[in-house]
Parts: sequence; structure tokens; C-alpha cells
Amino acid sequence: MERFELNILGCGSALPTTRHFPSSQVLNLRDKLYMIDCGEGTQMQLRSMHLNFNRLNQIFISHLHGDHCFGLPGLLSTLGLLGRTGELVVHAHPDARTVFGPVLDYFCRELPYSVRFNAVDPYKSELVYEDRTVKVYSIPLKHRIPTCGYLFRELPKSPHIIREMIDFYKIPVKQIAQIKDGADFITGDGTVVPNRQLTCPAKSPKKYAYCSDTAYCEKIIPIIEGVDLLFHEATFCEADLIRAKETFHSSARQAAMIAEKAGVGQLVLGHFSARYPDNSVLLEEAKAIFPETILAYEGQVIKL
Amino acid sequence: MERFELNILGCGSALPTTRHFPSSQVLNLRDKLYMIDCGEGTQMQLRSMHLNFNRLNQIFISHLHGDHCFGLPGLLSTLGLLGRTGELVVHAHPDARTVFGPVLDYFCRELPYSVRFNAVDPYKSELVYEDRTVKVYSIPLKHRIPTCGYLFRELPKSPHIIREMIDFYKIPVKQIAQIKDGADFITGDGTVVPNRQLTCPAKSPKKYAYCSDTAYCEKIIPIIEGVDLLFHEATFCEADLIRAKETFHSSARQAAMIAEKAGVGQLVLGHFSARYPDNSVLLEEAKAIFPETILAYEGQVIKL
Repeated sequence: MERFELNILGCGSALPTTRHFPSSQVLNLRDKLYMIDCGEGTQMQLRSMHLNFNRLNQIFISHLHGDHCFGLPGLLSTLGLLGRTGELVVHAHPDARTVFGPVLDYFCRELPYSVRFNAVDPYKSELVYEDRTVKVYSIPLKHRIPTCGYLFRELPKSPHIIREMIDFYKIPVKQIAQIKDGADFITGDGTVVPNRQLTCPAKSPKKYAYCSDTAYCEKIIPIIEGVDLLFHEATFCEADLIRAKETFHSSARQAAMIAEKAGVGQLVLGHFSARYPDNSVLLEEAKAIFPETILAYEGQVIKL
Repeated sequence: MERFELNILGCGSALPTTRHFPSSQVLNLRDKLYMIDCGEGTQMQLRSMHLNFNRLNQIFISHLHGDHCFGLPGLLSTLGLLGRTGELVVHAHPDARTVFGPVLDYFCRELPYSVRFNAVDPYKSELVYEDRTVKVYSIPLKHRIPTCGYLFRELPKSPHIIREMIDFYKIPVKQIAQIKDGADFITGDGTVVPNRQLTCPAKSPKKYAYCSDTAYCEKIIPIIEGVDLLFHEATFCEADLIRAKETFHSSARQAAMIAEKAGVGQLVLGHFSARYPDNSVLLEEAKAIFPETILAYEGQVIKL
């Protein structure tokens, strides 16, 4: 139950290639699935990565370019065919409801569950969603249309109970929840056994930031500072910087500069342009600035 | 230039599997591409089958269920990114424009080419489209929503000129087009050389019929009679006939009965339900009625 895994469903950009699907990822946090972007083909990739459709309740869309959201109607329709009943929330730019609402009304008239669009303001960083596992914040990015990334801050986990101490002090089962919450234990003779002797801390909570699509933008650094894992788009290499600037995308080198300045643990590059037959040029370029860099690929599972 | 090839891009039904994409096919007629249905992932399949996006000008949609048309926005968007300028025509139920128009207006504002929706009446068989290569007719089917299949009747090709005769009679180049159109040649001394001595006939024109999705429907038989190739849906096997009837789909046996009664050359089964791990049960069932049956699969090219 300490799972924190990033699944890469698609890491290409808008033009289809035989190597890449358009953008989609699933963050698996303690067996709950959080989807980030939903390009065309996402539902096939979910299936081929054996991710459980029933564990998905939240979808976060970065922006309304087709390669980040054209998989939504198919996925939402399939969830209906699979008999889903629980609400599904799509966090996205306010226009998402306007543009996808009529499509769902037409094609998914008899959906056995409800889809709720939660409007995300792409111009400020704010709490978008929280549950007992995670808080998700928006990260305003710099793209041709309003766009935001997402920061996932895992919430602290309860400490682990030390079974030997429970047995030794014969602590009643009904008090265990309180001890997990930090309570001390008082024995029959009034002795206080401090909580730290009864528990050991869980792994420290993790942070993941998704930044795509965006031009080089230092304003995001304070928001993503110190995350364990940063996904940053690297559509182009430095040699194509003019094209990157025109289209409000980043080079691999720029992605690495952001990772370096933000002091992140690891950088994963993605949103690859179709023009590079081999992305190792992007990897080398980024590693020269920030050695802890890897390339995304379809089917990849990054465990934190 | 005598090419008549059916490319199977997707032959699954609505639920995604690791084996099948949703419905899409491309008929390659003398190097012009005619798409039939456009389920999610069609543009990736076009790419992986190395079909030339530029040769596609006509898309025929059978009905407005998502697994037959959710690939349209992504494909139309990609055609724009590839710099297409010529008009593209989508032949579909009149609602297609209503439901996809706003999506294209939002996501494809700066498309460098125009998309025209041609409204197809799903309730009668009529000529939907023609060019110098083919005439395409609608085939009213029996499904939960208005649906039609499509009949492709290749037009007769010009006969081949017999080069040796051209040389022998020293026929001027400017007369060759007339001879291809059937004219005789008159020599300098007034001798008439009949056309049949100067030409040999081209291969006889082919007919292909696409029938999906549909319940068993004998009304289509006169329309598809004698086609060289019939694609007929076989979502279920006979053991699941109750489910087939409920959902207005066919069993493999029913598809074979239609093929047999219509006296077609070959039957290809598709639109497979996700429930069968192995479709050979469908194949055996159909072959018992109509031996010239094959199963569709992604990447398949059927040459006529």
C-alpha cells in the first residue's frame, strides 16, 4: 500500500508515429489511479498496461489541444460499458465542459455514472483536488493556449505499528488506530509508553510534478522545487530552439535547466516531436546539465 | 494502377482489447484511399500500415457510435498539421456535422483545408459518391441507431493498348486516347482496324460491400448480390445469439448465411466482441455455411 508509480501511456506529441502515442500518464498512488492527460488511444494503453479501469476516479487535463484530450470520449464511453457507477471527475480548463459536454450527451446518453467537469484556472497555482492520499495543485505553464501542469503532493502515511511492542504491552485492538494517529499507550499501572516506542515512521511522502506543454518558464521553479520526480516536456532538441520558441515548447536542455534549478530528484523527458528517429540526442543534451535524467517511453513504470 | 486492396485498421467492437482496435478500414483503389469508419486510434494505424495520408479524400462513416467515429477529430487535426490543402469529405449521418462541427471549430480553428460533411440518408440505398474510379452506394442496415453500410462498385477501366499494334500501324500518339475509349483506327489507305485488334480488356471491375453494424437483415441481399468481397460484422457466435439480438448485432453464422444467399466471392468477418479470446470459433461457425470465409485482423491487406 505504499505504491507510488508513474505509468507512461503516451509520450509523443501531436503527430502520430509508429513509436509513440499522444500524451497520457497514470499515477498509481496506493492503488488509486490518477490520470494526467488523455490523448487518443489512452484506453487501449490502459488496457495493454493492465491498469484497472475501476480504480480511476480523477482525470487531470493540462490543456485543450487534441493530443492531450481526444481520448476522453472513448475512455468515458468505455467506463460506461464496463458498468461503472461512481462519479468520475475531469479537472480541466473551463472550456472542456462546453466542448466535450455535447459529445458526451450525444454518444453517451445512457452512461450509468456521472461525469463532473471541475474547472481549473490555468493562470494561478492552487489546490485543484485532495483526498486522503494526495493533494493536487495546478502549475501555470507558458504555452500557445491556457495550460497548466499538475503537482501531486502525497499526504503523510500513518506510521507502522511495531507488532512486537503491541504483543509485549498487550495493547487492545481498539486502541491501535489511536496509536497510529500518534497517541501514547498507558499501561494498567499508569506507565506512559511514548508513541515513538510503539511505531516506526512510514516512508516519507513523495512529490511528482507534470509540466507539459510549456516553453521555458522559470516561474514554475518555486512550485516544483524539490519534487522527487519531474516530468518536463522536451519536444525539441537545442538545435531546433527557434521552432521550440515559435510553438511554445521546450528543448531537452531547457527541461534539464528547470530540473537543475528546482533541485528535483529525477527528470523524465517526454512529449517528443515526431522528427527525431532516435531520442537519445535529447537525453544526452539534458544529461549534460542534469545527469539524473531519463527518457519516457510507452509502457514505462517509474517507481518512487 | 489496377490496385484494389482492403486494409484492415481495426476490427474490434466497442470495448478495447490488447488484440483489436475499433472499426476502421481503408480501401485502396488504384492508389486512391477511401476510409470506412474511423474509430479511436485510426490515425496511428494509418501510420503503422504505411498508408499515405495525402491520398485520402473520402471518409465513409457507417453510424454514430463512438467505436466507429471517435478517431475523426484526431485524424482531421493531423491532416491539418501535415499541411493538407484539398477538401476532405466525411459521408455520414446528418448528425455528424452537428456533433463534430463544434469539436473541429474548437480544436482545429486554423485547419489549412476544408472538411465537408455529406449527409447520408441511412434509410435508403442510393449513390453517395462517385469519381472516375468508383461509385459508392449506401446499404441500409438494422442496428440500434440509424446505420448504413457501403457498397463500392469499381468503374470499368480503360482497356490496355497493345503496343506492338500501335507500332505496326504507326498510330499517332494523339489518337491513342480515342482508341482507349473504343475507337477503331483507319489507316492511310482507308482500311479500318477494329478496336478489339488494338486493345486488350482491363481486369473486370470489382465490388466490395461493408456491412457493420447490423442484426441479421436479408433486405441487404439484393444490394450486395455477387460482390467479390463482403465484410460482414460477426460480433458474436451463435451461442450468444440472444445477446446479438438484444444489441442488434450478428452471429458469425448469420454473416455466413447472408454471404451464401448473396452469392459473394469471399466473406471477411470482423467487429469482434472482446469476450472471445480466440475468434476461430467464429471462423469455424461461418465456414460451415460459407467456406470462403476469413477473419479480419489489424494490419491485414486483402488484395482483389
